[in-house]
Amino acid sequence: MPATPRSAFEAIWDELAPLGRHRGTGGYRRFAWTPEDGALREWFAGAARARGLDVTKDRAGNLWAWTSDPDAAVAAGRPGLVVGSHLDSVPDGGAFDGPLGVVSAFAALDLLRENGFVPARPLGVACFSDEEGARFGVACAGSRIITGALSADRARALSDADGTTMAEAMQRAGHDPDQVGPDEETLRRIGTFVELHVEQGRALADAHEGAGAAVGVASSIWPHGRWRLDLRGRADHAGTTRLQDRDDPMLALAAVIAGARAAAEQHGTVATVGKVRVHPNGVNAIASEVTAWLDARGADADAVRAVVAATADAGKVQAVEESWTDATAFDAGLRDRLADLLGTDDGPVPVLATGAGHDAGILAAAGIRTAMLFVRNPTGISHSPDEHAETEDCEAGVRTLARVVQELA
Amino acid sequence: MPATPRSAFEAIWDELAPLGRHRGTGGYRRFAWTPEDGALREWFAGAARARGLDVTKDRAGNLWAWTSDPDAAVAAGRPGLVVGSHLDSVPDGGAFDGPLGVVSAFAALDLLRENGFVPARPLGVACFSDEEGARFGVACAGSRIITGALSADRARALSDADGTTMAEAMQRAGHDPDQVGPDEETLRRIGTFVELHVEQGRALADAHEGAGAAVGVASSIWPHGRWRLDLRGRADHAGTTRLQDRDDPMLALAAVIAGARAAAEQHGTVATVGKVRVHPNGVNAIASEVTAWLDARGADADAVRAVVAATADAGKVQAVEESWTDATAFDAGLRDRLADLLGTDDGPVPVLATGAGHDAGILAAAGIRTAMLFVRNPTGISHSPDEHAETEDCEAGVRTLARVVQELA
Repeated sequence: MPATPRSAFEAIWDELAPLGRHRGTGGYRRFAWTPEDGALREWFAGAARARGLDVTKDRAGNLWAWTSDPDAAVAAGRPGLVVGSHLDSVPDGGAFDGPLGVVSAFAALDLLRENGFVPARPLGVACFSDEEGARFGVACAGSRIITGALSADRARALSDADGTTMAEAMQRAGHDPDQVGPDEETLRRIGTFVELHVEQGRALADAHEGAGAAVGVASSIWPHGRWRLDLRGRADHAGTTRLQDRDDPMLALAAVIAGARAAAEQHGTVATVGKVRVHPNGVNAIASEVTAWLDARGADADAVRAVVAATADAGKVQAVEESWTDATAFDAGLRDRLADLLGTDDGPVPVLATGAGHDAGILAAAGIRTAMLFVRNPTGISHSPDEHAETEDCEAGVRTLARVVQELA
Repeated sequence: MPATPRSAFEAIWDELAPLGRHRGTGGYRRFAWTPEDGALREWFAGAARARGLDVTKDRAGNLWAWTSDPDAAVAAGRPGLVVGSHLDSVPDGGAFDGPLGVVSAFAALDLLRENGFVPARPLGVACFSDEEGARFGVACAGSRIITGALSADRARALSDADGTTMAEAMQRAGHDPDQVGPDEETLRRIGTFVELHVEQGRALADAHEGAGAAVGVASSIWPHGRWRLDLRGRADHAGTTRLQDRDDPMLALAAVIAGARAAAEQHGTVATVGKVRVHPNGVNAIASEVTAWLDARGADADAVRAVVAATADAGKVQAVEESWTDATAFDAGLRDRLADLLGTDDGPVPVLATGAGHDAGILAAAGIRTAMLFVRNPTGISHSPDEHAETEDCEAGVRTLARVVQELA
């Protein structure tokens, strides 16, 4: 029996699916500058070469695959159009967050070529480094470095849970950490950047009064940030220390978790304690120190700040800001143009704000003309092995991306 | 300048002090069947050989150093007197919990020999394996195995945080895991066991209306146990998932921590959540599963059970019992004999119950005549790098132990 014929999208998707997948959980563990990350980079370079694209690596290690010389186009005053996303994941993340944008970029290019389309400017496919920040704690590290939003010194000194610095990890993976820094040469090649991404909520599934929409256009990214709360107490024996003699930081952790949720409800934001470190973490030892990380986001920056302050108060500590990104509005003219282009008889294309940060947001904040497309997520689940998008929606995303490229390139 | 003369106790103490000490925290990381544990075993064997004692290893890997043939004494109907304790630690534990009993045993033997004492029965020094259960989760594993309180199959299958089983760890450390099991040959050699231990509370410091006492005698060990609470939720994106759509197990953790404390206050016990595991433990990922461990103890077993039930209710889960030890009363005749022997003009020796489990409790529960001596802990702090006992109190402990051996051997 011949294999079931598969779409061009599925054929590319299936190549990528096994890389970095954990057998036990079914989730992905694709962390920056690891051997898995190296395998993903090789896959990207291979897919680009198979399409006759030239691959370059910028100062942060982001990869760019170009159909023609982007510098000549800059000199001619018609800088390129770039599509793409990232391939790394959170711990036990899903298959779609990131890779969908990269695979769709290649698939859209294939579709346009099949249809005989010849772009009037260079077309680039981007693969950003370390978007999730899962290993070193700073999200969108690759785009932040080249735009200067993350300084080279701070980036190099970031360390993972084993104490390995980003500089050491880059070195081991064959990327010279001395190269790290703002990269104007790379940025000026990007006339426009369009990132396609799986939606990480249910706005598209719920759109058009529940009829849903396969694809939407982003309006803005909520202000968002990460904070660390160091809750200190005193180690002691769990069996022999009277309750009144204890200084147990685990009680402060409970107050922080409950306080973050209550404050988020009050202020109309989201807030999450998703990461905790307990020392010494022994069953019969009262903890001496607990560290909790708070992720908070919302449409209104002041509301997010109020939630952080209330959470810190609940734990009777100061919150240490590890990252903060103001609200990012994508280019209004481009957004409206895409919304007009993509509207159908079923209605206008949904235009939605999101609480998730993206490399597209970092580039937009650096003044680059940027747009995002979202593909429907039927459950809204993301950052989970259960993250999903229907194949027909992914293929609608590829056709939409091809249409956008045709319009803009 | 000659070095300051040091006491016999201090000379032994100083040999042991560097082994397994963590430079950063100053605490001890002496976990079962690790290279550090191997170094401690070598130290014990060396100290025994230096005193002309024969060292044997039982089926659980506990070490026994004998002054003369213990089996001949069993045959003669006068089984030996054993003193000692353990050398392993909790994560970043103190120097005294365990080692004080072993060092005091050797120092007491030296003192008795100096004074020309010849025991009428064999004297043994014991070093129990894996008393803290820091690596494999079951406290007093060595004494539980030889008494049958922990089955060989369950012991071998216990695994550490890296997934290494106790059987694998034993094998690597040169102890045949097929040997593991009840060890009647070892147990019948123990006519009486006396464990000296640093106190892990402040009863001795507060004794005699605040005047304090250097040494006390144990009456009983509170009923105590460990329970695991598996709090399940659903992984999701921290930025894009609406609060009402979340199933975040971290909220259940907060309820469990607060609930355990409230229930302990209500029922007059102690209860501690000291160990937590979060999956996937990413800053921007709602956790999919949180595991919390509860340690609960108290004078009354029903009160402890009520605290466990209330804590499980708070987390809306069942508590999985990992270990349970009923109240253990030490031999009443022996306890009273020691209390009489050790009373002074300052008053009777304090006789106290404790919330800490000990190998002496496991042996007592198995029907062996057993007693414990406690040495004053001025702050009561234990399971911490700050755990302390004054040298003069430790030396009073050595003299007391020598007196007890003289009385009983």
